[in-house]
Amino acid sequence: MASVTCQISISLDGYVAGPNQSLENPIGEGGLRLHQWVFATASWRRQEGESGGEESEDSRLVGNLFRNAGAYIMGRNMFSPGRGAWDLEWKGWWGENPPYHTPVYVLTHHARRPLAMEGGTVFHFVTEGIERALKLARASAGQKDVVIAGGARTIQQYLRAGLLDELFLHIVPVLLGSGERLLDDVGDPKLEPIEVVASPAVTHVRYRVTPSTARQKGTG
Amino acid sequence: MASVTCQISISLDGYVAGPNQSLENPIGEGGLRLHQWVFATASWRRQEGESGGEESEDSRLVGNLFRNAGAYIMGRNMFSPGRGAWDLEWKGWWGENPPYHTPVYVLTHHARRPLAMEGGTVFHFVTEGIERALKLARASAGQKDVVIAGGARTIQQYLRAGLLDELFLHIVPVLLGSGERLLDDVGDPKLEPIEVVASPAVTHVRYRVTPSTARQKGTG
Repeated sequence: MASVTCQISISLDGYVAGPNQSLENPIGEGGLRLHQWVFATASWRRQEGESGGEESEDSRLVGNLFRNAGAYIMGRNMFSPGRGAWDLEWKGWWGENPPYHTPVYVLTHHARRPLAMEGGTVFHFVTEGIERALKLARASAGQKDVVIAGGARTIQQYLRAGLLDELFLHIVPVLLGSGERLLDDVGDPKLEPIEVVASPAVTHVRYRVTPSTARQKGTG
Repeated sequence: MASVTCQISISLDGYVAGPNQSLENPIGEGGLRLHQWVFATASWRRQEGESGGEESEDSRLVGNLFRNAGAYIMGRNMFSPGRGAWDLEWKGWWGENPPYHTPVYVLTHHARRPLAMEGGTVFHFVTEGIERALKLARASAGQKDVVIAGGARTIQQYLRAGLLDELFLHIVPVLLGSGERLLDDVGDPKLEPIEVVASPAVTHVRYRVTPSTARQKGTG
């Protein structure tokens, strides 16, 4: 079976978003400091249709991050700023051609019909919980990976439930001091560093994750 | 001028000691999990007069950790379990021949005469604060480094004051969930990863530290 993976930039003091997240500042104050290493890469700029950037180890890594992604799962907060009933005009943050190009399963309490975008991205809205979303995503992904895209609370839910196989952290040498912490209240899984890539800007560590106790994995 | 350095094992969720520290369990519940990678090394076992252990990259690193140490600074909590007036019978946790073999400056509010041990370790008790301790340690260390030995609060004080040049973190893939966090309330220094050593057990990252703002460094 393919893997359930997650990759995320995290500050050295453990935050994946700054404090005071808002519509104008969805990753919180200072949160962009976590992502400057991405914006500096040539591969990211190419993806955005721009030239320039550095042809670095970071760039190579960014270019390969989602090469094996067969489906994504995200929390509603990552898809939309709103809560409650859907504003059906809202089609995500990413414009007409989102960067996923696969099915994307959005966790929500509010049903909505699937939303097909340009470039192969189809948003599916799942109201039956994380295990159901994973089952659907696995079926879509086939031999490819299911990527838990975020946000932090969604990743925490999959970690806590013992459903994540791999956690790839980009440890950014900044201290945010406050904000949203990733690794709080996620239990005590076994974590094994299986790949480390060091650049001047960030330390990338890929961890294999094994639940600390065998647990019943429901099928939703 | 020689560097002011610090090296410490830290959990992936940011703790350098577990919760509920006590005389019986000075690094808190689960705290020993941060140090298993050291105990597994041949170099540590040799230092303890034992045979065996692994001749690994971790072992090489442990063998070199304090090669350039000319003096140490530690908080009272690291030297003794007591508080208040000194029990003069207490000579540290390390027996007659402590592993420092240099002057060690102990931060305290209670004066005490220097304590010379076997093997060259001399404990000096400094009541005039962290900058005075650093001045004395620098004078002792000459061209060698001053090592901030711990505990967490002492390291935090030096970081916050902009007096630390290098922070070497051994990022251990365990989640303690609670305990004493190292990187809280230490300001926003510039951190640059200048060396990364990856082993199956731990990811070692050496950061150059530069205070975020030029600041007056008093002389105590």
